[in-house]
Amino acid sequence: STSGGKPKPPPVMRYNLNNVTITGNPVENNENILVLTPMARFYQGYWDNLLQLTYPHELITLGFIIPKNREGNAAYAELDKQITKTQKFAPEKDRFKSIIILRQDFEPPLSSQDEAERHKMQNQMPRRAAMAKARNSLLFTTLGPATSWVLWLDADIIETPPTLIQDLAHHDRPLIVPNCFQRYYNGEKKKMDERPYDFNNWQDSPTAQKMASEMGADDILLEGYRDMPTYRTLMAYMEENGGDVHQEVPLDGVGGTALLVKADVHRDGAMFPPFSFYHLIETEGFAKMAKRLGWQATGLPNYKVYHYNE
Amino acid sequence: STSGGKPKPPPVMRYNLNNVTITGNPVENNENILVLTPMARFYQGYWDNLLQLTYPHELITLGFIIPKNREGNAAYAELDKQITKTQKFAPEKDRFKSIIILRQDFEPPLSSQDEAERHKMQNQMPRRAAMAKARNSLLFTTLGPATSWVLWLDADIIETPPTLIQDLAHHDRPLIVPNCFQRYYNGEKKKMDERPYDFNNWQDSPTAQKMASEMGADDILLEGYRDMPTYRTLMAYMEENGGDVHQEVPLDGVGGTALLVKADVHRDGAMFPPFSFYHLIETEGFAKMAKRLGWQATGLPNYKVYHYNE
Ligand SMILES: Nc1nc2c(ncn2[C@@H]2O[C@H](COP(=O)(O)OP(=O)(O)O)[C@@H](O)[C@H]2O)c(=O)[nH]1
Ligand SMILES: Nc1nc2c(ncn2[C@@H]2O[C@H](COP(=O)(O)OP(=O)(O)O)[C@@H](O)[C@H]2O)c(=O)[nH]1
Ligand SMILES: [Mn+2]
Ligand SMILES: [Mn+2]
Repeated sequence: STSGGKPKPPPVMRYNLNNVTITGNPVENNENILVLTPMARFYQGYWDNLLQLTYPHELITLGFIIPKNREGNAAYAELDKQITKTQKFAPEKDRFKSIIILRQDFEPPLSSQDEAERHKMQNQMPRRAAMAKARNSLLFTTLGPATSWVLWLDADIIETPPTLIQDLAHHDRPLIVPNCFQRYYNGEKKKMDERPYDFNNWQDSPTAQKMASEMGADDILLEGYRDMPTYRTLMAYMEENGGDVHQEVPLDGVGGTALLVKADVHRDGAMFPPFSFYHLIETEGFAKMAKRLGWQATGLPNYKVYHYNE
Repeated sequence: STSGGKPKPPPVMRYNLNNVTITGNPVENNENILVLTPMARFYQGYWDNLLQLTYPHELITLGFIIPKNREGNAAYAELDKQITKTQKFAPEKDRFKSIIILRQDFEPPLSSQDEAERHKMQNQMPRRAAMAKARNSLLFTTLGPATSWVLWLDADIIETPPTLIQDLAHHDRPLIVPNCFQRYYNGEKKKMDERPYDFNNWQDSPTAQKMASEMGADDILLEGYRDMPTYRTLMAYMEENGGDVHQEVPLDGVGGTALLVKADVHRDGAMFPPFSFYHLIETEGFAKMAKRLGWQATGLPNYKVYHYNE
């Protein structure tokens, strides 16, 4: 390209990774955060919740990966409409720094995205391998030199405290997860109630270790299945009504519904294994890989976020 | 930011990863390539060789990661001088699409970068773990949605055919490595000669498999050490004078001196393990990880590139 006849020099970008701080006070330190969402379906509640996050939107980049199938096309259309509304017409303070949307070519390995179908045990290995690859594609393609934090946020997380990012970051941990619950109508009590949803946040058990040691090299342990009791300590059941929301517990496996990660953990190489890694896969394998790199996962049993209920 | 009083909408970028082709004819298909170089020292021969590559420079993005120590500062200063010369003053066709330079904070774990010191066996584990992290930081931070290929090229590779990228890509393999040699003065023959340099390109052996199976979980196999004979088949010794430069061999381990990778291999999650992965580390672990993801490494025994000789 030329300007005034003189060729314009192509861009040279210099970054000192040391100068990208990652601290417990990210707002004060102007730290950029990348919010990454694999999205098979669009939920209005997800978008509305995202909009009400009080972390300065000018420091937030959004990244999405959406399958290139019929359901994905519908999700993309809905998302695009909301993005235009926010980025073009909302007050400037509501607009995000930038938004990257990736479409992926591989079909999701399940024909149906329904909760019952998704959670069948024999469907877990291919489903979670595909999810891991989707997360990796999104991560490798969007993480930049100026990113301090990565917030993994599933498309069906429809309710979090508005201060989610600040609250989690304040703990200053390499990877940290809130407790993911689900609201439902309790027919017995005849009123709305809530129950644990994400069983991938756990502390390891001798039973699970033993099961792993007796498995084939490519087999994976799954959590939350009656046929395969692991006796791991699940964060889902550690919640205490009225308990300290800042209480921390160490974790060996994490879920990805909401998961805050220091960008340096990913930069060191921590990704979501789409294969058996110490008999773990995807987000649970990620926690293990982070640990191999020297980064310990932390959970907040009493800090809750909510998953959509179909 | 405002333009004419009306707030400018922040950028929204949409990418269809399917539309980013990765083919055996990358020039015809306008495929972007990212050339990634971890750089502890600057070699003029590296830069001169890079400049003479005939792959269209407007499709080449360069990425560097340079340690933030005294030697790294000197390398950075030299590199920066050459970059300015090329990007500002060279003919437009010589200029690269863009250049990203990262400085990294962690000290290289060795006090000296001399060849003898680098290659001592007890220095390999921490050195290669640090190298793996440097490669991962560079990769995770620079790979973009429009990248088709990644060429890993060490800073001390000072001679390659000008058509290196086209030649390697033409094989249309997920990961492919030329044979890395070194020129030296042969005192016996009293003339310049060449010898194999990179021993990380190999085919596995039953001996190495057996050694691995008897090792501690965190231990790694190393190649090219007399005290630890693996009897692997080394590509370094497969070269035949005058042999077909396009002859392919399958590989189980690869080196990173020059290594062309389809971007989708990395996007699936393949990185450089900074820990023992099947008793392999860094580039050798990368080949194994790619394999776990379904991508087979290929070597070209008769296609040569040359390493600097200190
Ligand atoms: N890109 C992509 N996203 C997916 C795919 N399958 C599910 N997702 C999204 O990934 C996240 C987790 O999947 P989900 O089915 O909700 O998992 P579950 O709640 O653990 O059953 C959600 O945000 C989904 O919308 C897929 O094949 N591709
Ligand atoms: N960023 C970074 N690059 C390094 C470091 N150590 C070596 N390098 C570079 O990484 C590449 C491989 O290292 P080198 O020492 O040449 O490995 P060898 O030829 O296998 O002994 C070269 O391009 C080096 O300049 C380091 O600590 N940090
Ligand atoms: Mn879900
Ligand atoms: Mn070298």
